Amino acid sequence: MTAPTDQTDAIASDALIGHTVISVDAMGGDEGPAAVVAGCSLSAKANPDIAFILHGDEAEIAPLVAKRRDLEGRCRVHHTTEVVSMEDKPSQVVRTGKNTSMWSAIESVRSGEASVAVSCGNTGALMAISMIRLRKLAGVNRPAIAVLYPSSNPQGFNVMLDVGADIRADADDLLRYALMGMSYVRNGMGIDHPRVGLLNVGTEEHKGRAELKDAFDLIRDHAEDAGYEFVGFVEGGDISGNSSDVIVTDGFTGNVAIKTGEGTASLIGTRLREAFKYSPLSRLASLLAYPSLRRLRHRIDPRRVNGGVFLGLNGTVVKSHGSADATGVSAAIKLAAQLSQNKFNEKLAARMAAVLPVEEDKT
Amino acid sequence: MTAPTDQTDAIASDALIGHTVISVDAMGGDEGPAAVVAGCSLSAKANPDIAFILHGDEAEIAPLVAKRRDLEGRCRVHHTTEVVSMEDKPSQVVRTGKNTSMWSAIESVRSGEASVAVSCGNTGALMAISMIRLRKLAGVNRPAIAVLYPSSNPQGFNVMLDVGADIRADADDLLRYALMGMSYVRNGMGIDHPRVGLLNVGTEEHKGRAELKDAFDLIRDHAEDAGYEFVGFVEGGDISGNSSDVIVTDGFTGNVAIKTGEGTASLIGTRLREAFKYSPLSRLASLLAYPSLRRLRHRIDPRRVNGGVFLGLNGTVVKSHGSADATGVSAAIKLAAQLSQNKFNEKLAARMAAVLPVEEDKT
Repeated sequence: MTAPTDQTDAIASDALIGHTVISVDAMGGDEGPAAVVAGCSLSAKANPDIAFILHGDEAEIAPLVAKRRDLEGRCRVHHTTEVVSMEDKPSQVVRTGKNTSMWSAIESVRSGEASVAVSCGNTGALMAISMIRLRKLAGVNRPAIAVLYPSSNPQGFNVMLDVGADIRADADDLLRYALMGMSYVRNGMGIDHPRVGLLNVGTEEHKGRAELKDAFDLIRDHAEDAGYEFVGFVEGGDISGNSSDVIVTDGFTGNVAIKTGEGTASLIGTRLREAFKYSPLSRLASLLAYPSLRRLRHRIDPRRVNGGVFLGLNGTVVKSHGSADATGVSAAIKLAAQLSQNKFNEKLAARMAAVLPVEEDKT
Repeated sequence: MTAPTDQTDAIASDALIGHTVISVDAMGGDEGPAAVVAGCSLSAKANPDIAFILHGDEAEIAPLVAKRRDLEGRCRVHHTTEVVSMEDKPSQVVRTGKNTSMWSAIESVRSGEASVAVSCGNTGALMAISMIRLRKLAGVNRPAIAVLYPSSNPQGFNVMLDVGADIRADADDLLRYALMGMSYVRNGMGIDHPRVGLLNVGTEEHKGRAELKDAFDLIRDHAEDAGYEFVGFVEGGDISGNSSDVIVTDGFTGNVAIKTGEGTASLIGTRLREAFKYSPLSRLASLLAYPSLRRLRHRIDPRRVNGGVFLGLNGTVVKSHGSADATGVSAAIKLAAQLSQNKFNEKLAARMAAVLPVEEDKT
């Protein structure tokens, strides 16, 4: 990291001491720095304990910050000259991305000046940079991306992982996903004894691929020691159901599943709007139904649970939706702050180191 | 097949001549024979060209048929003594299921007395019996189950396959799924030049598993000859989108995807009802909104597109939802009749035989 580049920066920097410092990639995301700064401002208002390091073009960011009184004295800007685009290939970004806001945001976690990073940018690039700069936790072969999925659970959400960090996962990886997901639910949602399900095409033990049968045994055998309940195989319908708190799957299946669910929800939303536009009577009904529909949207609003978490790294990284607005960014920051204040990553590291040797450690 | 067992049977049997005969497993499904017979009656009313062979307990079925004037002279009951339950293992059913209504329903297609079979029963058992008794089409290594998925397409649905016939699929299988799905869409939905997409975790050509990259090339190379447009890799969100008419994937991923979509739609429905029950005003709104919501339900009603089709066998088998009511059964019968009247399976057999040699044929 370079030293602070101007006086504002230096003054603000001192003020961050004593706060939970969150490193934010201000240039990632479709909505640009304005949405990110607005999201930081919302979060700052809600949580007096947090402060920010914003990474990006200072000329663009500083005026946005200056307008937000909530951010006064709680925000430092780290100037960067380049931006990772949504189209950039992760392998390319790893080679040439040192001057990007995303790289810089991760670097703040690596150096310890921030405890957690948030970005709305290119997921693949963010994971690649995080892997290279933060490195994997001891005991973890494949890091995972965990997301919250709306469900009929008491808490309203299941945690599913992996949803796309890696398209492969063997039985050992799936066990580690179970342990990481369990730890995330315990520390991020306050559920002491989470229920863990392993995603398959049927609930019978004889079904599915060989690695799933092996994973079944491994996850079952670790349940008592790690303090979770293994509910066995679950199916696609359980992702939105109430059979589990953690849904374990490989990154290929998980990625297809969340995108299928999002697409289906979006199609239903479109059809609902069309249905209400059909006739004068239905338009009147839609006016009266507006509070009900708004309540519905609030309950299943993806912005409220915005933020995939990268698990299995030496540092916490929260990936917000590319299309996140201020509300979405604020939700991701809230999650980041909660995980940081719970010392989630330290607990996760201890659990992963304790559980059992990973194969690649021997090589 | 045994000879007709009583006079009613014999008389009705003669009357079937000249009709498109549909073999129906009357005992499959959660709702029992009453729903199946009611569905047949609805279909008979709508389509004067079809007739039925109903397989199951004659003592239970005959009185139900007698009550339906639409079925008079167009329905033969083939008595069977056993029933495949939803919990029965396919491997077990194949060994001991000869006296079940499901086996008998498939046998009618095998013998040629019916052109297509419909069952609401255990999917795995139905596929296993169909494989054993009808055998695979020449050129097909892995048969597939194809379903219609609600989408923003002009026709309102995409066809996705495989959704669970087999948890594995190599590049050759995926090519055949593309060809079978294309043929199904052409003959079942009247789309002459369907768009075919290959499900993956991203649309970039470098993404995904090795077999997907190989399948990409194979499906692309066959597009011109077979008369479809290959749109390349698609993602989970495209299953309900307008980028494709046919979504090709392995049975593991496809099964998780449809169950995820169904579960998500069901959760949104529950939340929508809760939202409308919230207050006196919202309950009033729900009364006024009722026609709009009914219109919505009609557009995305799974019962209207009820019926997975088994592709790649010497004979057409339509699998209806286990929970199908009369409307659902009728939709499955409508699809079965349409495929039979279009001589779909003959066209499919010709296409599969023509396209290229399959590996297992050499062994």
